[in-house]
Amino acid sequence: MKSESRPPSSVTNLKIVCLAGGVGGAKLADGLAQIVPPENLTVVVNTGDDFAHLGLKICPDLDTVMYTLAGAANLETGWGRAGESWRTVAEVGRLGGPDWFHLGDLDLATHLVRTQLLGEGMSLTAVTGHICRHFNIQPTILPMSDQPAPTLIATGAARLSFQTWFVKERWQPPVEQVVLPDDVRATPAVLKALETADLLLIAPSNPFVSVAPILNVYPIRAMIEDLPQAVVAVTPIIGGQAVKGPAAKMMQEMGLPVTARAVADYYGDLIDGFVYDQQDAGSLDGLNMACLCVDTWMHTLADRRRLAQEVLNFAIYVAGNE
Amino acid sequence: MKSESRPPSSVTNLKIVCLAGGVGGAKLADGLAQIVPPENLTVVVNTGDDFAHLGLKICPDLDTVMYTLAGAANLETGWGRAGESWRTVAEVGRLGGPDWFHLGDLDLATHLVRTQLLGEGMSLTAVTGHICRHFNIQPTILPMSDQPAPTLIATGAARLSFQTWFVKERWQPPVEQVVLPDDVRATPAVLKALETADLLLIAPSNPFVSVAPILNVYPIRAMIEDLPQAVVAVTPIIGGQAVKGPAAKMMQEMGLPVTARAVADYYGDLIDGFVYDQQDAGSLDGLNMACLCVDTWMHTLADRRRLAQEVLNFAIYVAGNE
Repeated sequence: MKSESRPPSSVTNLKIVCLAGGVGGAKLADGLAQIVPPENLTVVVNTGDDFAHLGLKICPDLDTVMYTLAGAANLETGWGRAGESWRTVAEVGRLGGPDWFHLGDLDLATHLVRTQLLGEGMSLTAVTGHICRHFNIQPTILPMSDQPAPTLIATGAARLSFQTWFVKERWQPPVEQVVLPDDVRATPAVLKALETADLLLIAPSNPFVSVAPILNVYPIRAMIEDLPQAVVAVTPIIGGQAVKGPAAKMMQEMGLPVTARAVADYYGDLIDGFVYDQQDAGSLDGLNMACLCVDTWMHTLADRRRLAQEVLNFAIYVAGNE
Repeated sequence: MKSESRPPSSVTNLKIVCLAGGVGGAKLADGLAQIVPPENLTVVVNTGDDFAHLGLKICPDLDTVMYTLAGAANLETGWGRAGESWRTVAEVGRLGGPDWFHLGDLDLATHLVRTQLLGEGMSLTAVTGHICRHFNIQPTILPMSDQPAPTLIATGAARLSFQTWFVKERWQPPVEQVVLPDDVRATPAVLKALETADLLLIAPSNPFVSVAPILNVYPIRAMIEDLPQAVVAVTPIIGGQAVKGPAAKMMQEMGLPVTARAVADYYGDLIDGFVYDQQDAGSLDGLNMACLCVDTWMHTLADRRRLAQEVLNFAIYVAGNE
């Protein structure tokens, strides 16, 4: 971000944009939704994981964020719907179809409606708005792009689609490189959200396969670099481990230290502030950036709100000190 | 059919081809499957009702025939799966999607697998074979064509797709005309079945929207006209009413008498024999064609077998007297 900052007014007037992947991003977004007026909160979600499966357009990260903000998410798994059942996918397997992707009966409805509306010519942004309205979700949830933007995982000789690597192969094949597509453009809705953002937060999502795909969408990275106010990221790495998912394993395979500091270094000049866990206290000392050391675990709904409030307060502090 | 007939051998050696639509066709096919060795029974099914819905390829008549021959059909409704549930479609409605088509959770699996396999480049014939194998269905079930062949219903100013008229509008808009597509061709599998058929049966399906779409596929009608052995149709009209569905209402709207005789006249020279219900005894007198008057109701599984046996015996008789 540039240094020509203006002092933020009270938090309720600040326009917040949060970049989010799946579970971690959804949880922070949910915390933010508890304290930020809905008209001031926009969550820009990774769609690099999206894929076509059984004829349906599936957007795992969008779904996780929507279900979480709707209070309809499965709190135990972090993904999928609460009260889910699995009749259809079990029958798909019995009929010799692919059943490796966990498609719940309720979850399926989202994919069916999305596929139908996209087929009618609606944009993914508009479809997401439609589904959010029917879930009575008040904040704005935006896909990072309306174009397909598939993230590929280069592993050995193969380049796997993200879901093939992540779900079908249970993220076991070692990652040599995350391959992001060229020429993907942000939507007018994302551009407008970034233009008017007072604070930009990067959720505790996987930096390489959740956040990087968003930053890769032109011109999102450049716009964030130019943001006059604070850009603050929250670590997804605690005590040398990923809170969830393959981030730690990927960092190891890509030759990075598995530390919160390596995440801060990865974001580098893009961010103005970094939030890391108390378990790693001291490990960010000497970093040339504002840092906040707090409990970043979000076990409960109250944790989400507490962390969101701490991150927001910190971001306001960072913005005021730019 | 031509008159150069050869005497049929025992029923177990005869190759039977049955043209079928939905429920009535499925029931007769199921009766035939109980007495004809599976390698000698081919059911050619109407695909004029097929449609794309919620991103899925749905083939209602194929599904009804498959579920029936698999013993997986709902015996009360005649369509759909036994033990069905409706979680997904209820949620589709809640999310503002189209829920007018009755998509059960088990039924959905068929559409998902079909859509996936078609998307991989498999033909509808091959996909149907795949699903039949997984249902452990022994006779051969063939779609009438691998090409899309949508039946349209001309009603007033509008031309409705078949399912829109049939399910969404509950077949209430009066039918002015059934509009069948040009240039639809039969598959090699259908051609081979017809070339080698000893007996051809036309199931008690709707003549206008179930059987006519099959006959409209080039060169099915011509091949049936040239068949050396008997062609026998079973009436779907009993006592001035359709056993099920819109056949009677359509006949009225198209200015036809609602009688078994009108059905026989509609098939005309194409058929060599006609099976009608005892309730209409005498009404076919004077028809210049072999006729069989029996109980054509198929309430029970045993009824299906009995009627199939009577129809087969009659067809063999007709063939022997050609």
